[in-house]
Amino acid sequence: MPEELTNQSAHHVVIIGGGFGGLYAAKSLKNAPVKVTLIDKRNFHLFQPLLYQVATGTLSPADISAPLRGILSNNKNTQVAMGEVLDIDPEQQKLILQNEELNYDTLIVATGVSHHYFGNEQWADVAPGLKTVEDALEMRRRIFMAFEAAEKESNPEKRRAWLTFVVVGGGPTGVELAGALAEIAYSTLKNDFRNIDTTEAQILLLEGIDRILPPYPPELSAKTEASLVDLGVTVRTKTLVTNIENDVVTIRQGEQIEEIPAKTILWAAGVKASRMGQVLAKSTGAELDRTGRVVVQPDLSVAGHPNIFVIGDLANLADKDGKPLPGVAPVAIQEGKYVANLIKSRLTAKSLPAFCYQDYGSLAVIGRNAAVINLPFLRLTGFIAWLIWLFVHIYYLIEFDNKVVVFIQWGWNYLTRKRGARLITGKTSLPLVAVEEASNSRTPLEV
Amino acid sequence: MPEELTNQSAHHVVIIGGGFGGLYAAKSLKNAPVKVTLIDKRNFHLFQPLLYQVATGTLSPADISAPLRGILSNNKNTQVAMGEVLDIDPEQQKLILQNEELNYDTLIVATGVSHHYFGNEQWADVAPGLKTVEDALEMRRRIFMAFEAAEKESNPEKRRAWLTFVVVGGGPTGVELAGALAEIAYSTLKNDFRNIDTTEAQILLLEGIDRILPPYPPELSAKTEASLVDLGVTVRTKTLVTNIENDVVTIRQGEQIEEIPAKTILWAAGVKASRMGQVLAKSTGAELDRTGRVVVQPDLSVAGHPNIFVIGDLANLADKDGKPLPGVAPVAIQEGKYVANLIKSRLTAKSLPAFCYQDYGSLAVIGRNAAVINLPFLRLTGFIAWLIWLFVHIYYLIEFDNKVVVFIQWGWNYLTRKRGARLITGKTSLPLVAVEEASNSRTPLEV
Repeated sequence: MPEELTNQSAHHVVIIGGGFGGLYAAKSLKNAPVKVTLIDKRNFHLFQPLLYQVATGTLSPADISAPLRGILSNNKNTQVAMGEVLDIDPEQQKLILQNEELNYDTLIVATGVSHHYFGNEQWADVAPGLKTVEDALEMRRRIFMAFEAAEKESNPEKRRAWLTFVVVGGGPTGVELAGALAEIAYSTLKNDFRNIDTTEAQILLLEGIDRILPPYPPELSAKTEASLVDLGVTVRTKTLVTNIENDVVTIRQGEQIEEIPAKTILWAAGVKASRMGQVLAKSTGAELDRTGRVVVQPDLSVAGHPNIFVIGDLANLADKDGKPLPGVAPVAIQEGKYVANLIKSRLTAKSLPAFCYQDYGSLAVIGRNAAVINLPFLRLTGFIAWLIWLFVHIYYLIEFDNKVVVFIQWGWNYLTRKRGARLITGKTSLPLVAVEEASNSRTPLEV
Repeated sequence: MPEELTNQSAHHVVIIGGGFGGLYAAKSLKNAPVKVTLIDKRNFHLFQPLLYQVATGTLSPADISAPLRGILSNNKNTQVAMGEVLDIDPEQQKLILQNEELNYDTLIVATGVSHHYFGNEQWADVAPGLKTVEDALEMRRRIFMAFEAAEKESNPEKRRAWLTFVVVGGGPTGVELAGALAEIAYSTLKNDFRNIDTTEAQILLLEGIDRILPPYPPELSAKTEASLVDLGVTVRTKTLVTNIENDVVTIRQGEQIEEIPAKTILWAAGVKASRMGQVLAKSTGAELDRTGRVVVQPDLSVAGHPNIFVIGDLANLADKDGKPLPGVAPVAIQEGKYVANLIKSRLTAKSLPAFCYQDYGSLAVIGRNAAVINLPFLRLTGFIAWLIWLFVHIYYLIEFDNKVVVFIQWGWNYLTRKRGARLITGKTSLPLVAVEEASNSRTPLEV
């Protein structure tokens, strides 16, 4: 790394991760008398709440991404570095990267979470999750390839398996995916095929506990379920996935075991902490919770290391009721801003009260014009909720990169019911092997 | 393939390839009393004239693509099939696909061309060409990764190699790529880096003959060269690439040999016919030209096979001066429409005069607000030419999928000088190994 990054005398704040937490920390340090380095493996910030729209062919990756350098271009005290942190040396206050080391005065770790298959990591190949742009393109590929394969399949049983979509996990992402899948099958693609009737597609949303959207109040869960059923989604609660193999999802509901032949299985069930959690545990002795998140102090620092902070999805901080704060963008944003302010305060030898999350409510979209909203003073489903959802996302998306065009795109899609971004790319340049015999354990699309 | 495709009694027209030629042939057969099957390896039509805008981070793949099923959704006599044709049996009038056969009454082959490295196919890895969405994303990745690597490189010589971009081939694609690269380096990224000055980047456009844009009149070539030089591009004509190895491009200008260290080399120099040309030669005895294109009859059919047509870039049909028609969209579109009309005429036992290309002129864009236009009655460069270029592309892009939003996106990019789509995706999720020693023959970015 060039000299500028290591040799200046200003207090050096290093931020690992350019998601909501890391980015808002960097933005909030703009005019502080510090030097900031933001390290990310990717060159762009990803607006993850809309990633399901890439997976389902409405938006392109670039629509919900913004180059980190571009966002921070006017933060003259800030350097963006593409790279991956391998280790932390808290004694020497330095980071070990692939070919270099980097000293810090204050460290902010905001590397988030990835999928979790609860010990069944072999499911990752057959039931992809949704965290990265590449994940979303892979989901998109599988969804639209399934209809192509069904169109070519003359065996009715196999055809049905191609037209069965299983979404595992009834949280916001699962709800959003299932709603979008229903729209794809029953509206977008309705007139596009000649041999199949896409409205015969079956979309299953599976949830382990007794209702979908567990973080929301039960009445909103019930209304959301009703909306999904209206859209054509089959919602099954108290349902656990016990196996995924040979294009069959085995589920257990109470004592009852059932096998569902399905070619497209999307994973929205669980997350685990990114690798930096373990790096921190090893180097600083930080306590991890059972999903690998770092249990932080009330000021978001790591116990015994007041100059190392963990924010965003990777942090486990209890709310008033003792439950960890949810892994959502508003928490990460507020944490990023808080830590930035705390650093600024410390530079003038002041302190700040403990971090306190302001819960302005939560939102999830159900379908083309329905959403669910849980605000402190308002619980809502339906079209008005959808408009509010839209407004909030416009607000944030525009704030970080003036992505005005995305909303014109949305408006256009909304009016035309089109999904212009339903390209099958990547591995799909191969000939369609999906129609080959699928008797072996490998799903044909994986070839 | 399901029965509907093979068992109907209507005259069956099979079109291979959903580019401009194949798509316009299918569209023109909409109300004809025939059954149409359009086969493509991909599920979308690609508006190739704008592919360089994906490669340079202005547009997303979906912005210049449209699902073939969506475009042909209202053509009730038309079936779209994803697949790859392996062989043709003209005796039996059938196609051999991976797992099926398909009978045709009339066959239209419109599978286009791919890159050509003039016998140096090993250059394909180090100097990618631009024909597919994946090609464009790979170019985009290399271009923006190069700046990231330069930012991290402290050795001035290596840094210069990262900031050297060589575009091989001075045709329209090469001119468009070089112009866009200049804008990226000297405008878009100007304020985004802290250790490098992106305006020190060197962009070289190499052309083998004595002027760029050889198909255009010399005066327009000269004006285009002047515009590119204004933008900061170094144009070198009469310059041949003799080797590309170890991140060094070896060029020969007359007797003079020169070695240019460059990490990013983009290939816009040559095309060769797609594999279907050879399949046709083998199965029908069709004559191929030296780039593998099929020499067709005046009605675009293959000699001795009046019910097999070749259109678009894959066809070699001489114009009035005896030169083959250029491989551009307008030729393909007119050929597709012509063959559709010929098929319709034959059904009523009529015939048509030979195909005659109406040349309405050619266009290429130089930079953000300059283009070059060669019309029968008008030769133009500069801003007005750019507006005409824009209008023509709007016209065609909207015609095929109402891609209105793309132009709002363009307008927005134009006003803000942003390139929102400059994501580094795919292989780049790897840590940045680019800064490692590059002493072996494999370029580091290929790892």
